[in-house]
Order: sequence, then structure tokens, then C-alpha cells
Amino acid sequence: MVPHLVTALTGPINELEQRVLESMPAIERWFRLEWMEHTPPFYTSVDLRNAGFKLAPVETHLFPSDFHNLTPEMLPLAVQAAMAAIEKICPEAKNLLLIPDRQAHSPFDLLNLQRLVQVFTQAGLNVRLGTLDAEVKAGSRLTLPDGGELLIEPLQRARGRLGLKDFDPCTILLNDDLSGGVPQALQSLHQQYLLPPLHAGWAARRKSNHLRSYEEVAKKFAKLLGMDPWLINPMHGTTARIDGDELSSLDGVRAQVDAVLTKVRRKYKEYGINEKPFVVVKPDQGDSGAGIVTVRDARDLDDAAARLPAALRQLAGAGSEAAGLVVQEGVPTFERINDAVAEPVVYMIDRYVVGGFYRIHADRRADENLCGPGSSFVPLAFAESHQLPRAGAKPGASAPNRFYMYGVIGRLAMLAAAYELEATDPEAEIYD
Amino acid sequence: MVPHLVTALTGPINELEQRVLESMPAIERWFRLEWMEHTPPFYTSVDLRNAGFKLAPVETHLFPSDFHNLTPEMLPLAVQAAMAAIEKICPEAKNLLLIPDRQAHSPFDLLNLQRLVQVFTQAGLNVRLGTLDAEVKAGSRLTLPDGGELLIEPLQRARGRLGLKDFDPCTILLNDDLSGGVPQALQSLHQQYLLPPLHAGWAARRKSNHLRSYEEVAKKFAKLLGMDPWLINPMHGTTARIDGDELSSLDGVRAQVDAVLTKVRRKYKEYGINEKPFVVVKPDQGDSGAGIVTVRDARDLDDAAARLPAALRQLAGAGSEAAGLVVQEGVPTFERINDAVAEPVVYMIDRYVVGGFYRIHADRRADENLCGPGSSFVPLAFAESHQLPRAGAKPGASAPNRFYMYGVIGRLAMLAAAYELEATDPEAEIYD
Repeated sequence: MVPHLVTALTGPINELEQRVLESMPAIERWFRLEWMEHTPPFYTSVDLRNAGFKLAPVETHLFPSDFHNLTPEMLPLAVQAAMAAIEKICPEAKNLLLIPDRQAHSPFDLLNLQRLVQVFTQAGLNVRLGTLDAEVKAGSRLTLPDGGELLIEPLQRARGRLGLKDFDPCTILLNDDLSGGVPQALQSLHQQYLLPPLHAGWAARRKSNHLRSYEEVAKKFAKLLGMDPWLINPMHGTTARIDGDELSSLDGVRAQVDAVLTKVRRKYKEYGINEKPFVVVKPDQGDSGAGIVTVRDARDLDDAAARLPAALRQLAGAGSEAAGLVVQEGVPTFERINDAVAEPVVYMIDRYVVGGFYRIHADRRADENLCGPGSSFVPLAFAESHQLPRAGAKPGASAPNRFYMYGVIGRLAMLAAAYELEATDPEAEIYD
Repeated sequence: MVPHLVTALTGPINELEQRVLESMPAIERWFRLEWMEHTPPFYTSVDLRNAGFKLAPVETHLFPSDFHNLTPEMLPLAVQAAMAAIEKICPEAKNLLLIPDRQAHSPFDLLNLQRLVQVFTQAGLNVRLGTLDAEVKAGSRLTLPDGGELLIEPLQRARGRLGLKDFDPCTILLNDDLSGGVPQALQSLHQQYLLPPLHAGWAARRKSNHLRSYEEVAKKFAKLLGMDPWLINPMHGTTARIDGDELSSLDGVRAQVDAVLTKVRRKYKEYGINEKPFVVVKPDQGDSGAGIVTVRDARDLDDAAARLPAALRQLAGAGSEAAGLVVQEGVPTFERINDAVAEPVVYMIDRYVVGGFYRIHADRRADENLCGPGSSFVPLAFAESHQLPRAGAKPGASAPNRFYMYGVIGRLAMLAAAYELEATDPEAEIYD
């Protein structure tokens, strides 16, 4: 399926695209040097939004799902990247234990698992699936839409190691984002590699840390390219922790909304952008899309106030501490596929871009979150010339060039996650 | 272009294919462990021949040309592999000096260079071309078939470093196989990475060393899979050095031909193969296809004797020492594309398979060398499902499975080249 990207590719000419293309060797070298100092997350997916006047990551997933939405053309890239990742982490590895998302039981979730099993098997590992669901006492076969089967087995914890019956893995790959908390089975696994580490999960992770790291990365990158970091970085503010019940007093949130909106208005004026700015208010924690509210004016917050507490309580109910709110500059998406609003999603394994797709939603507006019921997926048109940029093409006129740029911004968000995980590592040694 | 591979894929069922597929995680792990001990050549292409009853590499090129024959679908794989290679060798690299083959001036050769420039630029390097041709005193622009241009510049040697005007590379990538000898410009470059190293060139390299290393690798691999190494290893013998003029006395060669033919006959009998065995006699040195002679009986050698001296003299004339002859079990190729005899060629960068194609020749027989005027190329049908094996498909019925097996055998030959380069490294420290 080749997406119809006419609007996306004939939108406002993006100076950024040209600058990114011209600087390709410098950009790749810069990443190479950054990866000498920082360890990339094991796998990452990044939701982007392209407003024509700016391009920014809006969500960085460290336990990505939906791998089955990548085009099959990109599979060998994923396998090669997985080989490189394994070689660094545990070259003598034989067995990989894959732990699925506890909440994910749809046919799509099974296809995602099937794809992950496929990638890591072909990278040279015996892959088996172990469930966090304590109700599962024996192996059970789940049937896939294509008629294939997946065997899900109960975990077995023996002292410091986690495995399955007759299966002792050197590496455990987690595909659950821990928004439901850290299960006992995963705690204190000091003899095995648990990837990503526990503090990458939403039980501990905070969006505000990531946004701070991304701001730092965006500034460095913008300096390399000699451009305004705002072109790739949504401004943001954070509020202190709020309990679900304290939301009746929204003064702190209102102040942040006002502050961010004022800064965005100034930028829009500077760049002559005739759009109405907006911000997105979301819980500092969690990945579910619950409690995300679009606000165009601090006064709109009163409407939102009715919706926020439920989302926060949901998080608190999942056993996590009360978290603050993040107020983030909204980036409209001006890409369309068959009239539906679309946002690109970039997938990475280790430091490599391995594919992507468009998330589209026919019933939502350009300033709304596209995750949620009714969203669907269109593979990024990597197939045409395979994400390799074409020198000499007019900015905005070449899908491969556009996708190269998406891959660069996706990797910036991944680098920010690397910074973030270093800064928040509970086991890091402190030298200062 | 999708090759018509009906004959190839419905040929005699290949037990090897099934065994290779079943053992995939074990095979990939085995490679991973081998690459911990041995450094892969920077880039490699391997000519294979599939006889249905056996599959073997017949030539391992350490300065591969024809990169432009890889399908565009495979380009991102090549870029990713190049990134991994650079990161290991010289992560802070900015500049790459690419040195083209001195003998290669055809439009195809320019397309090959264009592709290499593309791959390494996209991997994050400033790539420029420097010629070994001392006649070139100023940069000259060569026009490509697609209208593009390549700038070829004269080399500048300053003390221990090689570069171009205003261009000081950290790494030099050689695409000339040195069958014309080692130019002064490339000698004693101790401050830069010269890839591949000089002793990988035909001025020093001997096929017999490679065949010995491949035999060792094939035995290890066959042990891993519990199979007869002969299924992937052509038997061979070598003769002592022969000067071009001494060929009138072919007794040594005749004895080797007899010995190898006898062993092959025994194997054919063991496996019930109703083919007439043959051997290929070729100079121990060089890659040109000159002097390669197919022999079905030691008595045929008298015919061949007329052709061999010219080839050997040609080598000697190129300034290299007189080399011996290699007598290698001939592997017929039973693959056909539109009735033309075809042999697969596998391309690798660093340890990764990045693509391949079929070399076809309408006018040659299944037991003849397909390199030479009149040969053409068909990209391997990686595009269909991208070299990722499909579990469950009947052996011989799935192109991806066939191509995965080709990638495995190609990598065995590459591993043999790694062993070979270690054993022949003039700068290696000797511990025993």
C-alpha cells in the first residue's frame, strides 16, 4: 500500500529539509560521536508532527508496539540492527525471553509480537514468550490472524534469574511499558540483561525529564546546523505534582499554559505564521493518551479540568505516585493521507532507523492526539527509494528526503531518551 | 526487474537448505562468536554456484565491483552496514578517500563508484575520489550514464599520508585489487587506515591460501550442522610455482587433476550423482578470469596447456612473482534465468549481507566461468520478501529461503577471507 502523500509533499517548503540534506555527512558524524558517549535505548519509536513551519517529536516510546505496521521491505534492516545490538550487549547470547505487554491482547498486539519474534530469531536467538500474567499457569497457544501460532508461557523465577521451563535466557526483552507498575518477577534481576531497564518504564519515567533532555539535544543539533532550535523543539513547562483531587485549583497549570502560549505566539509572529497557537496539557507520566487535553486559551482549562482528574486518578490507581502535568506547545500536523490527518512514526532498533509508518485518524483534527480508537496505519513510503535521500531534489518534492529528515528527528528524540535514561539511572555512580 | 527463477527454485530438493533454515539461530550465533575472534574484510563479494547437490563459493572478491547491480531496495542495508563498519574502524572519521580500480573506465565502473560514493556519503562521510593514474594532473569530471558527474582527482602524497588537494582523509578505501602491483602512493601509509590492507590485493594474495582457510571454515560449519563439509566445499589441490615457460612439463598439474577428479568421482558415487565430474585449473593469483580452464580428464590438459602460459605470463608481466596453479573441483551451476546459465553473487559490507544478484551468460555452459564479455546481471529477488527466510516453506520452494542460504555460504567465504588475511598479515605479531 502506497500512501497518497500529495498534500504532505507539496506543503509549505521546508527550509529545514534542505538544511538537513545539505548537512547529511556532518549530521551522521555527529550522531556517531554522540553514540560513542551515550548508549541508545534498545528500541524506540517516536511520534512526529510536521507543521510545515516546524517538525517535532511529540512522544518517545521506549517499549514500542506496532512493529507489524512496518513495511516488510524494512525487515532486513531491523534484523541487521538487532544483530548489531545483540553483539554489543551479549554476543554469546543464545536465548531471548520476550515479555509482552500485559494489557495487549488484540490480534494487532499478537502481530506485533510475531514480528518481534521473527526479527530476533533471524538475528540469531532462540526467542520464547513469557507472560507477566500470573493467571497463566501453563503454556497457551494463541492463534494469529494469518493462522500462525504464538506460544505464551508462564515465567519462572529462580533466585536472581528469570526464565521459562527449561529456558534460561541471558537477555530479557521487555515490551510492557510498566504503566501498570513493576511486577515482582522483574525486580532485582542482576544476573541477566533486562532491556530496556526498569527505569525506562512509566512506573518511574517522567515526560518532563525527556523534554528537558530533548531540549538539550535540540540545542546542540541546532547549533551544528546553525538554526533556531525552536524549529524542531516544542516549548514546554511543567507543574508540580498534583493529586487528582487538587485539580479544582488549577492556578499553577493556568500560569504555565499562559506562559507557553505567550512564548509560542511570539515565535509565530517572528516567523509570520498565521495559525492559532495551542498547547497540549498531559500527565507527566504514562503513555496511554488518557488525560491529554488540547488548550487554546488558559480559560479553556476549566473545560479540561473536568477531564484531567480521571486520567490522573487512573495513574495513581495503577500504584504510581501522583505526577505533575506537562504543558507542551502543540504542533499541528499538516500532513494528510486521503483527507485524514496523519502523523509519521519512526522506528529504531539500537541506533538505526529501521522503518516507520503514518498514523492516521479520519475523525480527528490537526491539533488533536491521533492515538486512540479509530486510528489506523499506513506504512511510510520508504519502498520507493528506501529512505535514502536524493541529492538535488527540491525540498518537499521528494519522499525519500522527507523521510530522511524524519529519521534524523526521530534519532534526536532517541538520543534525548539516552540522555534521560543516563540521568535517571538509579544505579549510576555519582562522581560529583 | 524480477528474475524468472522457476528452474532454480524447483530444482532438486536441497537438503542443505532445510538444514540451514532449521539451524538459523545457531548459525547466526556461530557467526557472532566467530566475528568476536576475527575481523571481517571491509567489503566482500562472493560468487556462488548451486549444483542442486552442492552449493559452494567459487570466488571471493575483496575489492568488489558492480555495487550498482544491487537492487535499490537493498541500499539502506548497505548504508547501515557501512555505518557499523566506520564506527568500529574510525568513529570520528570525517573524510573518506575512495581509490577506483585503475583498469576500470567503463560506464558500469562509474556506476559502481557512484554507488559506493552514495553509500558512504549517506553513512556520514565526505567522500572524494583519488586516482592511481599518474597521468591525471588535475581534477577531471566524468559523466555518468544518468547524467550525473564524478570528480576524479590526482592523489597527493605528503610524507606518511595520502590525500587530495585540501582533503586529508582518516580512511582510504581501495577499490583496485592490485593485480597491477602495489603503487608507490599506497606504500607505508602508517598514519591512515588503508582498507582493505595491501596484502588483500592480488600482488600478494594467493587463491590457495583462501581455499585452505575456506576448507577450515567449511569443516567447522559442517560440524555445527552435522553434515558432510563436501556439500559446501569444493575439493582442491595446488601445484608448486610454475613459470610461464615451464608449462610444457605439466606432470605436476596432471597428477593434481587426476587426484582431485578421483576424489570427486568417489563423492559423486557416494551421493548417486549422475554427472560427469570436472575440475577447474586456474592461476593461484589474480581475479581476471584469464587462464581459467575447465578439464574433465587429465588428458584434456594438453589442450589447456596452450592457453595457460599466456595467462601466467600476463600475471608475471604485471610485476608479480610467478605463481602456482590451483586445481579446484568444478561445481556446475544448475540455475537458469530465461534459459541462460546463472550464478548468484552475494555482497557484504562488514559482517552483513547487503544484497546480491545473478550473473548470467546466455552463451556459456553450466561448467564454464560466467565472468567475461557477454555476461549480464539480474538483481537477486530479495525484493519479494527481502532475504528473510520463511519458516515452514518447502525446501526449494521459497526464494527468500534460498537467498538466506546463499547469504550464509557467502559469509562462510568472507569468514575464510578473514582467516586468510590474518594468516598472511605481514605485520602480524608471531606468538609461537
